[in-house]
Amino acid sequence: MSDLTYPIEGFAPAPAESLIGLTLDDPRVPTPSFIIDDRKLEANLERAKARAKALGVTLRPHLKTHKSIKIARRQMVSPEGPATVSTLAEARYFAANGVKDLIYAVGIAPQKLAEVERIRALGCDLKIILDSEEAARLVSDYCMVKDVEIPVLLEVDVDGHRSGIQPESEDLLKAARALTNGAKLVGVLTHAGDSYECKTIDAIREAAEAERAGIVRAAERLRAEGFLIDIVSLGSTPTLMFAESEEGVTEIRAGVCALFDLFMTNVGACSMDEIAGSVLTTVIGRQTAKNRVITDSGFLAMSRDRGTQRQKKDYQYGVVCLMNGEPVEGDKLLLTGTNQEHGIITIPEGTDLAQEHFPVGLRLRILPNHACPTVAPYAHLLLVRDGHIVDVIEHVRGWE
Amino acid sequence: MSDLTYPIEGFAPAPAESLIGLTLDDPRVPTPSFIIDDRKLEANLERAKARAKALGVTLRPHLKTHKSIKIARRQMVSPEGPATVSTLAEARYFAANGVKDLIYAVGIAPQKLAEVERIRALGCDLKIILDSEEAARLVSDYCMVKDVEIPVLLEVDVDGHRSGIQPESEDLLKAARALTNGAKLVGVLTHAGDSYECKTIDAIREAAEAERAGIVRAAERLRAEGFLIDIVSLGSTPTLMFAESEEGVTEIRAGVCALFDLFMTNVGACSMDEIAGSVLTTVIGRQTAKNRVITDSGFLAMSRDRGTQRQKKDYQYGVVCLMNGEPVEGDKLLLTGTNQEHGIITIPEGTDLAQEHFPVGLRLRILPNHACPTVAPYAHLLLVRDGHIVDVIEHVRGWE
Repeated sequence: MSDLTYPIEGFAPAPAESLIGLTLDDPRVPTPSFIIDDRKLEANLERAKARAKALGVTLRPHLKTHKSIKIARRQMVSPEGPATVSTLAEARYFAANGVKDLIYAVGIAPQKLAEVERIRALGCDLKIILDSEEAARLVSDYCMVKDVEIPVLLEVDVDGHRSGIQPESEDLLKAARALTNGAKLVGVLTHAGDSYECKTIDAIREAAEAERAGIVRAAERLRAEGFLIDIVSLGSTPTLMFAESEEGVTEIRAGVCALFDLFMTNVGACSMDEIAGSVLTTVIGRQTAKNRVITDSGFLAMSRDRGTQRQKKDYQYGVVCLMNGEPVEGDKLLLTGTNQEHGIITIPEGTDLAQEHFPVGLRLRILPNHACPTVAPYAHLLLVRDGHIVDVIEHVRGWE
Repeated sequence: MSDLTYPIEGFAPAPAESLIGLTLDDPRVPTPSFIIDDRKLEANLERAKARAKALGVTLRPHLKTHKSIKIARRQMVSPEGPATVSTLAEARYFAANGVKDLIYAVGIAPQKLAEVERIRALGCDLKIILDSEEAARLVSDYCMVKDVEIPVLLEVDVDGHRSGIQPESEDLLKAARALTNGAKLVGVLTHAGDSYECKTIDAIREAAEAERAGIVRAAERLRAEGFLIDIVSLGSTPTLMFAESEEGVTEIRAGVCALFDLFMTNVGACSMDEIAGSVLTTVIGRQTAKNRVITDSGFLAMSRDRGTQRQKKDYQYGVVCLMNGEPVEGDKLLLTGTNQEHGIITIPEGTDLAQEHFPVGLRLRILPNHACPTVAPYAHLLLVRDGHIVDVIEHVRGWE
């Protein structure tokens, strides 16, 4: 298919393994790179486990944030799961690496059932979700024709945020009844997407309670009709952090809490100091007249995500930090613009900062608006402890 | 480094080559996928060549939009180039595939010079750019220590858009004088970034003339000081399309004009019908109460780019098209929201469209705001003619 004269890899600057042991300012460490502070990652993973334990529910981490088996094994309660994924490429990758209990938490398209079946054949109990009688019939037909069993959760809508069936809707029972043959109803699932929009912790607690009450109500209605509902699944990072009770719930899902980001800092789910992921960048020039510093962290490196734009504090394209991870001048120095491979830092008025503090070749770290899209394009993630690279982590990218 | 039990590829749904010959609605074609209409691509590539010829300048296409050697070979005037790249990963990949004349059009960081040297050792005349005396000294020092020659272009700022030295600035001569040893000044380069912000064609023509006048003036000042300036390089897709004269210029660079996108439609550089790249997606559910259709084209598939938001027509996250590429109801049906792997289409008032027209499993095509970040995450690009996949194109991703 490709007519490469040589494999691309044949020309990589250095084998990824050779980066282990180097400091982040070593010229052999490429920029932009995505780096993860191992101590902060560990603390974040422990905090999520402790929260789930305190709530008395199973933690089913969403692996879409980092898409890495090495991090997943530290994040999951067991190497076999449970966990959540957002693509079948993730499901295939984690199944191939020994995870045996996965929910593909995006509504199923019938065209994807053959791949679901292949992944289940690897020995992974991959479950799917759907939110209509129509989709239930399509899955039931597939299971009949192929004579296979596929476990299904009904997606419930507790806040009108995105997809799902409302708990009181007759459509909930219709979808359940339409699951026949090998299409086996095993539970209900919801995601309180609106919790991301909350302006106060109290508002998040209310969103979390509405999420709990809605999913439990859906489970009750189905059980009253004689359906066995083993899994009652909900979650988002804000609800994991602030829910006061998950009575009637069996498991909680959360993803970004492994790394956190500026959006979650604004939500109140973490402090800026707890953000474990950042982009390593290098100063490549300056625009003296406009008091700007140019870096090699453009919008492919940072993502175009500007989630903090509509929050209490707009961090533009990210908060600039020193190599030790400390934000420069609190949170005053921002990446104010990006082009594809150019980042623009604007030195603010009223600080002691001057362009001379940013010589060409200087390395900086930038905290992102949103960890998930920022991590996605990198071939590897650099795990860092005390300023040294301790591991180079592979993860899955794309959809194939 | 990775501890995969099996290579990820070992579980790919199907070898990419096996997609050749299939129609886009074949269930074996995964979604989301990035598809390129081969006839529109060809017309766009020819139009760019014709424009450069009419202007009497060499076309040095920017390959950052698609990052694919197969498309590059159709886009360049010769299989050996010239061309432009935005990362050293692109430079390495294209050099490994026989391209022998490249400009890395992002200001150089000294840490990257060893990789520049490795790529030049492949037989590619890779040139770098810089915009300060400080950077010029760093490159000169490297060339002296390593006893190598690296050709350099000075980046010129014609509109205060991003980086570069202003044509009348004394810094221009200082940077040129600081290039010593093997650091060889071969030309000047600029990019009229402000042309993207123009509201009228006349405004683009003015931006193009300012770009031309500025870079030619920079070349004249350097020649007056006795410097040899062989390359006078400028360009952007808008200036390629609308410049009236490029007198004194030797080459023009443009990238997105290979595929075009909604942003360029708003700029007036193309019609919506000329957009060659789109995202193939599948309907996965519905939100009846809000008259929404849910797809599997989320923000990783479409990118978070909302460039059209500040233009004359805001296309939200993209224009929804039928499988034949025709926009639904003109340009009224839009992807109005995205989550990581969820796209949200809102059915507008005042159309005959109803949710029943969008059954689960239906495939659609979505035109993106910005081709470059949308193409970036896909492992392969599907080349399509008359509804059939005629090639599966590999391209380079990331920075390693």
